[in-house]
Amino acid sequence: MTKRIDLNCDMGESFGMYTFGADEQLIAYITSANIACGAHAGEPDVMDRTVRLAKEHGVRVGAHPGFPDLAGFGRRMMDFSPVEVYRMVVHQIGGIQAFCKVHNVRMQHVKPHGALYNIAAKNRDTADAIARAVRDVDDELELFGLAGSELLAAGRGAGLSVASEVFADRTYQADGSLTPRSRPDALIRDADEAVLQVERMLNLGKVHAVTGEEVMIEADTICLHGDGEQAVAFAGKLRTALEQSGVDVQAIGKAGSRAK
Amino acid sequence: MTKRIDLNCDMGESFGMYTFGADEQLIAYITSANIACGAHAGEPDVMDRTVRLAKEHGVRVGAHPGFPDLAGFGRRMMDFSPVEVYRMVVHQIGGIQAFCKVHNVRMQHVKPHGALYNIAAKNRDTADAIARAVRDVDDELELFGLAGSELLAAGRGAGLSVASEVFADRTYQADGSLTPRSRPDALIRDADEAVLQVERMLNLGKVHAVTGEEVMIEADTICLHGDGEQAVAFAGKLRTALEQSGVDVQAIGKAGSRAK
Amino acid sequence: MTKRIDLNCDMGESFGMYTFGADEQLIAYITSANIACGAHAGEPDVMDRTVRLAKEHGVRVGAHPGFPDLAGFGRRMMDFSPVEVYRMVVHQIGGIQAFCKVHNVRMQHVKPHGALYNIAAKNRDTADAIARAVRDVDDELELFGLAGSELLAAGRGAGLSVASEVFADRTYQADGSLTPRSRPDALIRDADEAVLQVERMLNLGKVHAVTGEEVMIEADTICLHGDGEQAVAFAGKLRTALEQSGVDVQAIGKAGSRAK
Amino acid sequence: MTKRIDLNCDMGESFGMYTFGADEQLIAYITSANIACGAHAGEPDVMDRTVRLAKEHGVRVGAHPGFPDLAGFGRRMMDFSPVEVYRMVVHQIGGIQAFCKVHNVRMQHVKPHGALYNIAAKNRDTADAIARAVRDVDDELELFGLAGSELLAAGRGAGLSVASEVFADRTYQADGSLTPRSRPDALIRDADEAVLQVERMLNLGKVHAVTGEEVMIEADTICLHGDGEQAVAFAGKLRTALEQSGVDVQAIGKAGSRAK
Repeated sequence: MTKRIDLNCDMGESFGMYTFGADEQLIAYITSANIACGAHAGEPDVMDRTVRLAKEHGVRVGAHPGFPDLAGFGRRMMDFSPVEVYRMVVHQIGGIQAFCKVHNVRMQHVKPHGALYNIAAKNRDTADAIARAVRDVDDELELFGLAGSELLAAGRGAGLSVASEVFADRTYQADGSLTPRSRPDALIRDADEAVLQVERMLNLGKVHAVTGEEVMIEADTICLHGDGEQAVAFAGKLRTALEQSGVDVQAIGKAGSRAK
Repeated sequence: MTKRIDLNCDMGESFGMYTFGADEQLIAYITSANIACGAHAGEPDVMDRTVRLAKEHGVRVGAHPGFPDLAGFGRRMMDFSPVEVYRMVVHQIGGIQAFCKVHNVRMQHVKPHGALYNIAAKNRDTADAIARAVRDVDDELELFGLAGSELLAAGRGAGLSVASEVFADRTYQADGSLTPRSRPDALIRDADEAVLQVERMLNLGKVHAVTGEEVMIEADTICLHGDGEQAVAFAGKLRTALEQSGVDVQAIGKAGSRAK
Repeated sequence: MTKRIDLNCDMGESFGMYTFGADEQLIAYITSANIACGAHAGEPDVMDRTVRLAKEHGVRVGAHPGFPDLAGFGRRMMDFSPVEVYRMVVHQIGGIQAFCKVHNVRMQHVKPHGALYNIAAKNRDTADAIARAVRDVDDELELFGLAGSELLAAGRGAGLSVASEVFADRTYQADGSLTPRSRPDALIRDADEAVLQVERMLNLGKVHAVTGEEVMIEADTICLHGDGEQAVAFAGKLRTALEQSGVDVQAIGKAGSRAK
Repeated sequence: MTKRIDLNCDMGESFGMYTFGADEQLIAYITSANIACGAHAGEPDVMDRTVRLAKEHGVRVGAHPGFPDLAGFGRRMMDFSPVEVYRMVVHQIGGIQAFCKVHNVRMQHVKPHGALYNIAAKNRDTADAIARAVRDVDDELELFGLAGSELLAAGRGAGLSVASEVFADRTYQADGSLTPRSRPDALIRDADEAVLQVERMLNLGKVHAVTGEEVMIEADTICLHGDGEQAVAFAGKLRTALEQSGVDVQAIGKAGSRAK
């Protein structure tokens, strides 16, 4: 059976005069764009351009909601109650949806950003609030979350289709969590090694933990980083390697029906 | 033939700990709620509560987009290009739409706020940008604008249903424009006189200018102010007077189909 | 020896069209005004008016820095690193200082707001960052912190004069901390009882914990709440009671030199 | 007599994760840094780093206040009343002053940004509001404004020392104003030609208008652009050319006393 994988990237994270990420180059290599919603990054001009960019490249459009902390880029935890998270996510999805209507494209997924993503991986109340917000706005939306996270469980609990996200260039712990960025062995800097990690995930459903153990992992979508000098080169290399290995790189929606 | 009129009020203009306007009392007297979208006022918690409040009272929900200037409450002109206005309005409508989905209610109109409303009354490029934004997001939405304004012309030009807004408690100039608030005769402070002005508008299609002339005016919807000590009392008085005069007070949508 | 106490209140927490707190009435009863700095609340117009109001009433002006979260009123924890806290506090103090210069009044203290205050009570790194920021901007500033808190220890460590803050209408735990607001016995609703608690603090240096124990407590300044229906009446009652008991109600600076 | 000129550049216009301008390279070529104050750009982390950077290079520190419109980078006009402008400028200067205190450096000038700069060039009420704000915070501050502008007149009227700003790479109209950027002949793209324009200003006190006329112009400080591919190369070229021509490139304060 042919393996399938989605390649996603956070996009639309520029703001006014400020440019962030190589969206226009990376868009050629990915299948799902998570578009910032004007809270941790993005504003209406950027949202509009990014939805159009994704549409032009046949890339799946998703919302990328985050904490309203532009100075911190949504990476600082904010102590929101579940109802505050729910309403924040509803609001942010709505902004991207409006641009999807204007461009006549269907929004297909939601992936939380930064600190919200991290909290939702471990805190079930926050995860549930996100999942309910997504479902209540549009129950056809697919929810992206860290492999093995509470967010995926919450999404399934809310009746949503979910996508288990893995990282090509991050290492894993024996419990399946990502090695914290503060540790020296958090990143895989060699592109070939990163490709190998992905291929193991796809072929064997496993990843080597930094401590040597084999850990079961489900890989529906791979997160590509949008910034950094090597981002574009790495994305191209990974996509080429996957295709040469016979992997079917494409966005896959619920029952396949929402694939582009 | 029975006269019909819609009573609208700006709502959802609170923000976090800050309360603005007597929404919970006024909602009983109006037929259309223009809900702030998180730019000049409002944030997700307020939006959510206000859409729910309107739904509970069977009041028509609309978006109330404005300039992103919370400190100035959207009342200070900002020099946005038409494309910036377009994207701003698309984005802000989207936020309210998401809460409409969550509450299973249909958004039915859009009324710009403050400085945006005033510019759109006179500047056709800005008016066109707003009208196109509304149409592109949902061409069933009705566009509210000042009686005789460029905004109504732009709305009609974009194929939208429009509602001509009049004021019960503001005086008019001989050219049909509102007397600027800076002038001492700008406001009608006597409620009976305000009711009379509205009844003349409805029965005769005319208003007396402050300089004595009779001016033709089309009245589809009356703007009720949401703040001020007399706001609730005046709303009640006006609604009662209109109903006693046999006026049919209700929201009226395109071909009547979108009335509640 | 005459007992001395300072009465402080958070002020300048309005924002644009939004009014919060009864500043103009409360100013008559207090001796220190902690003025919001434009992050959790306040903006330049409010800051200017509030510094002038304090000056007119001979009330000590202080800065009241908080997390930049207007929608959450600075009450939601944000995960700032110590260096981020340091810079945020420096910046916010600077804003109030500029208005002090304009009004030719000397800023005399700093009291952190909301979540920042609470974190600084327990987390020494955050407390140290605040204390260093205050000292580096002006080492004559007095630092206000919760009685027994890390913030007071940090302030003393930085060589600052500190003021130990107590609450008239909050109950205390056996460890000297405030009973969390989530508990039903968190508040003292009877004004007479609140006055008694303050008098015990001043005369005996002790407070009764809700569990009955006597706890040592140092009281340099009492926090009066600026919002709520009873705020003004309570402030008046407390001040009158204290003065009738012979307490010297006044702002007291380092070595007495900075009292008004 | 040796000609003197100051070279200034807008700095500290990054924001959080977003980088704008080549501050670290340009700082080597300039004598005055106009540091963004957290409204049109900048936040506490950036302010702190930029004040330190200027200090390390012996560059004069100034405040660069602008309209609070981060998405528009302060380039969109906002309709502020004079009192709103006054308070906004007071507040923004205060933020930079606090970082100056922390780094033990003296702030020496103020230059408005973007739309505020442009309005202040033509509108005397706005210009007066800015000048009074600067004077009231610190009457030793020097006010930078466009050569021939109302802002310079307002500054002189308020008793401030002023610096007449010219542009090396912009063309001029016969009335001494800058050719609008919308026109194809607005920019001088050839560096040698730009150097020549500056040398004529310094030696003859004149500039050629695009329509051929000679216009009198006073040049105290030259604005160098901080962004754009050629910004650093041009700055280096201009400084070298000026020094080779025997021009004394340095910040000059009131009566020379505030030059470093």
